[in-house]
Amino acid sequence: MTVRVERKPREEITAFDNSTLNPVTKPVAYVKPGDIVEVTTWDAYGGVVDPETTFQQAIEKGIVGSLNPVTGPIHVEGAEPGDTLVVEIIDIELPEWGGSSIIPGFGALEGWVNLMEPRTKISYIRDNKVIYETDHGETIEIPVEPFIGTIGVSPAYEAIQTLAPGAHGGNMDCPDVRAGNKLYLPVGVPGALFGLGDVHAVQGDGEICGTAVEISAVVKLRFSVEKKTIAWPRIESDTEIMTVCSARPLEDAAKLAYREMVNLMVTEYGWDRDDAYMFLSLAVKARIAQIVDPLYTVVAKLDKKYLTKR
Amino acid sequence: MTVRVERKPREEITAFDNSTLNPVTKPVAYVKPGDIVEVTTWDAYGGVVDPETTFQQAIEKGIVGSLNPVTGPIHVEGAEPGDTLVVEIIDIELPEWGGSSIIPGFGALEGWVNLMEPRTKISYIRDNKVIYETDHGETIEIPVEPFIGTIGVSPAYEAIQTLAPGAHGGNMDCPDVRAGNKLYLPVGVPGALFGLGDVHAVQGDGEICGTAVEISAVVKLRFSVEKKTIAWPRIESDTEIMTVCSARPLEDAAKLAYREMVNLMVTEYGWDRDDAYMFLSLAVKARIAQIVDPLYTVVAKLDKKYLTKR
Amino acid sequence: MTVRVERKPREEITAFDNSTLNPVTKPVAYVKPGDIVEVTTWDAYGGVVDPETTFQQAIEKGIVGSLNPVTGPIHVEGAEPGDTLVVEIIDIELPEWGGSSIIPGFGALEGWVNLMEPRTKISYIRDNKVIYETDHGETIEIPVEPFIGTIGVSPAYEAIQTLAPGAHGGNMDCPDVRAGNKLYLPVGVPGALFGLGDVHAVQGDGEICGTAVEISAVVKLRFSVEKKTIAWPRIESDTEIMTVCSARPLEDAAKLAYREMVNLMVTEYGWDRDDAYMFLSLAVKARIAQIVDPLYTVVAKLDKKYLTKR
Amino acid sequence: MTVRVERKPREEITAFDNSTLNPVTKPVAYVKPGDIVEVTTWDAYGGVVDPETTFQQAIEKGIVGSLNPVTGPIHVEGAEPGDTLVVEIIDIELPEWGGSSIIPGFGALEGWVNLMEPRTKISYIRDNKVIYETDHGETIEIPVEPFIGTIGVSPAYEAIQTLAPGAHGGNMDCPDVRAGNKLYLPVGVPGALFGLGDVHAVQGDGEICGTAVEISAVVKLRFSVEKKTIAWPRIESDTEIMTVCSARPLEDAAKLAYREMVNLMVTEYGWDRDDAYMFLSLAVKARIAQIVDPLYTVVAKLDKKYLTKR
Repeated sequence: MTVRVERKPREEITAFDNSTLNPVTKPVAYVKPGDIVEVTTWDAYGGVVDPETTFQQAIEKGIVGSLNPVTGPIHVEGAEPGDTLVVEIIDIELPEWGGSSIIPGFGALEGWVNLMEPRTKISYIRDNKVIYETDHGETIEIPVEPFIGTIGVSPAYEAIQTLAPGAHGGNMDCPDVRAGNKLYLPVGVPGALFGLGDVHAVQGDGEICGTAVEISAVVKLRFSVEKKTIAWPRIESDTEIMTVCSARPLEDAAKLAYREMVNLMVTEYGWDRDDAYMFLSLAVKARIAQIVDPLYTVVAKLDKKYLTKR
Repeated sequence: MTVRVERKPREEITAFDNSTLNPVTKPVAYVKPGDIVEVTTWDAYGGVVDPETTFQQAIEKGIVGSLNPVTGPIHVEGAEPGDTLVVEIIDIELPEWGGSSIIPGFGALEGWVNLMEPRTKISYIRDNKVIYETDHGETIEIPVEPFIGTIGVSPAYEAIQTLAPGAHGGNMDCPDVRAGNKLYLPVGVPGALFGLGDVHAVQGDGEICGTAVEISAVVKLRFSVEKKTIAWPRIESDTEIMTVCSARPLEDAAKLAYREMVNLMVTEYGWDRDDAYMFLSLAVKARIAQIVDPLYTVVAKLDKKYLTKR
Repeated sequence: MTVRVERKPREEITAFDNSTLNPVTKPVAYVKPGDIVEVTTWDAYGGVVDPETTFQQAIEKGIVGSLNPVTGPIHVEGAEPGDTLVVEIIDIELPEWGGSSIIPGFGALEGWVNLMEPRTKISYIRDNKVIYETDHGETIEIPVEPFIGTIGVSPAYEAIQTLAPGAHGGNMDCPDVRAGNKLYLPVGVPGALFGLGDVHAVQGDGEICGTAVEISAVVKLRFSVEKKTIAWPRIESDTEIMTVCSARPLEDAAKLAYREMVNLMVTEYGWDRDDAYMFLSLAVKARIAQIVDPLYTVVAKLDKKYLTKR
Repeated sequence: MTVRVERKPREEITAFDNSTLNPVTKPVAYVKPGDIVEVTTWDAYGGVVDPETTFQQAIEKGIVGSLNPVTGPIHVEGAEPGDTLVVEIIDIELPEWGGSSIIPGFGALEGWVNLMEPRTKISYIRDNKVIYETDHGETIEIPVEPFIGTIGVSPAYEAIQTLAPGAHGGNMDCPDVRAGNKLYLPVGVPGALFGLGDVHAVQGDGEICGTAVEISAVVKLRFSVEKKTIAWPRIESDTEIMTVCSARPLEDAAKLAYREMVNLMVTEYGWDRDDAYMFLSLAVKARIAQIVDPLYTVVAKLDKKYLTKR
């Protein structure tokens, strides 16, 4: 069965309901494991930027509502606290353009380089390429690598702003949350109360100016529920298993992700703890997802060929 | 011309001369730009570990001298303070085995996971694979990716321990310092006073237990000198340009590396500063080299196809 | 007028309502500026620890409910978003004993020193002294310095766990929030929706094991509302003005607190920005409030004699 | 016996010898435990700033040599690696004025507040007060609290720049290194090779703009040697024992200092480790010494009345 979940009209987006993941907001849809779920999402600007309107102008016009709104909550039947919600990402449909911005007071190099005037740049998307027009007159094509920037479930009892990542998912800005991969999330409340938004056409490691190519999108998903408990999000691709953790300072995000990988090897593949630690020191890969949000996100990756179920 | 530079016998390694990069120690060799320089290096253990001797046993026997010794200083003709030393890495010849260790008080997950008993594991290297024998009886083959862990020049006036990375290079533990790539280092003193050691057969991102597959090796290099000034090390491969920066906390290493990349785009390719910042937010890659040394190291990478000399 | 606000019975404490500060929970009391408000609070354990029950035993008995519960929300008439809520702390009445605990997985030296077995120690309070019985048989008297550990208002739209400090106040664990001082909080929602709990009989700088002498208490307060906007909490004593900021890593908490002090000098006392910065480099004091909560807290302090209204 | 150790003329200060603490430089004086040692020191500017010359002007004139120079090395008879050097600070004689500066690229609020133009302000010192003339025309008197900013011994084999603090002492910028107190330093090389400089007339916690009231001074000291080993510097006043540790991020400096205090209580006063940890959570004080140098410095303090020799 296919369930379509529409984003709210821009005027109806509210801060508590759409700019947090929380246990209180009434679900906008009820789905079952196995359903194809097609969701329309707002970009991180909440839809106020377009080829004629910069983010700064939108602020001046007063049309900026809640930031980084998610579509949701989506209630997944059978998901209970302590379970793992498996989100299979089937497809991400791109629009014709996306926007990126420098927002003073935000971004990794704020205070590290000069200038930092507010600005927005629109980039068109054609033939799976982002067409970037430089200030010095070059046209550069960047291959798209679309993924979902903000995706998560309700925390057990907090209402966490959608600008923040955490153990519940949220604004992880991790390029591996892409079509073809599976995302695993720890369920905090009955029905999971899932939400998503903030899709990016492409993003560099770190998302350093605070924005990627921010797009509105149509995302196709399928859920399942596993009766096991995980502490932090995980991702699985055809070739890799990944752990995704968020903290400050950045080394703590990395240490959490590495530790989760040790735990996974010990718990699910029967490794000795020290041996797993030594092996990862030779074989793990790590990606800095972002260093601009309230917590920073690191992804640890291990080739699945190294893991044999026993 | 080929110059061969031999490592000192183990008993002659001294802490100030071999476990720091410094402006005082007398050069062991004088080479010219263009010479093929073939260097033998000690592993990070200073040669005291072997298939019959763990690092712990070597400590107990009192045969551990200076840690992470480098072969050097090598004086490069014509290198002056403010210049850039270009190190072309031609070849890294592997031995038959390498050792990795858990060393209590060292390592990224020290205090984050239990156990952490001191131990050393020897892994044999065959057919360009590291043969890892797990504690649970599996044999896993990891393709080798040999690189030079510690490589640098003398600071302008300090004697920096070879366990530390910095603007002068040093213990960056960066897998991109491999055969086929060029390393750029900022020269601090006349002759550069170059040293290297600590070769790894393979290493995961982060070098999390504090050691990789530590090997003694024979390294073939060629130097040249550029009359330009850089602030931090850079690496160039066939396809990428990279900036390599070290700091604590880890986000500061990342920010330095990203800022160096912005600076490179502005200075050498004529980009507008803000535009470079926004573009990198879409296109830069980043690698966590290590999070175990006195400063942590991050490598920012940009595909050279995006940079057009103007 | 005196308003008495009672803490809920232990069984009625709920996670969303009492272990977050949030804009949704219905107020338990409505007060006016000028009222004397007398509040009974639970200790950070939620009342489950007593001279016969360690925290560990309470966990095993399953009687631990929501952690660090606050009494509230208290609705303050006339407080509107953008205002500053002034909380005059009139009195803190101490009980006869308090408990402190080592809780594995929590505390500043977790992973930095050995042992870390869970344990709870009860200390009696007599003649304004905490009577600490050491494991080696000494009795040490520590003068009490009672203060409110968790005190804050609702964020604009999030529900932030009471274990965390922030711009809204919360778990700042700052010993300067004591009788005789005034706390200033930025109002996020109509009525402010104020809550408090987690009183400490005495605490060292850093609250390093994660707990102080945790007590239930009766607190006497008086509110007023100022029609001005502040970004972070402030405290005023007879002799000092203080800014209280929370972040990770700890230097960011310090930098925020110092910057708030610069802003205060510029905005309210007419200093030049650079001059204020240079002057504080000579005259500011700083206290590490805590380094155990989700964000760390630093208090910057300036002697009021240095500030002349112009 | 009184030994007078003169600072070198400004032109003879060299980077390796005076702007590092190192094991190589030849001692400028040989003293014995018990001698009164009277040392003249340069300010952190190396003597180039005066009421007619800003630091910026000195840079432009090219008269700035090595930064933060120390007078030394002073060889202390009988001090051997593994010993503790005790430095009794008898007196610090102040000059008539001191200078403080904003130096772009340096300072805690670099990038956190605007402006940051280079500037130097001279403050006169009269009747034990620093006379601070504000930009808005006020004259503020700050009571002097003179102390030695940079003071340390040679590391075992490195040459550490005098801008950096560490286990060897160095640029700790800790106001408790004042007349009447004793500083304990871990000896790394025979004779200790002690150096000092960078005296401050007064400094706020954090030394946030990167400079205090920087003065040249005459310092009177007396050394003794204890045949015990410490890991980090300690300070003793009439009422307190202190541990002084340096690291980044700032919480690691704090954790090191707290851990050193736990170690001291366990080793020297027979406390149980966990009990010491819990007790410090109630009774320790902490000072942020500085957050501007290559490592940040925190001082943990415990009232000596809580410690009974057993």
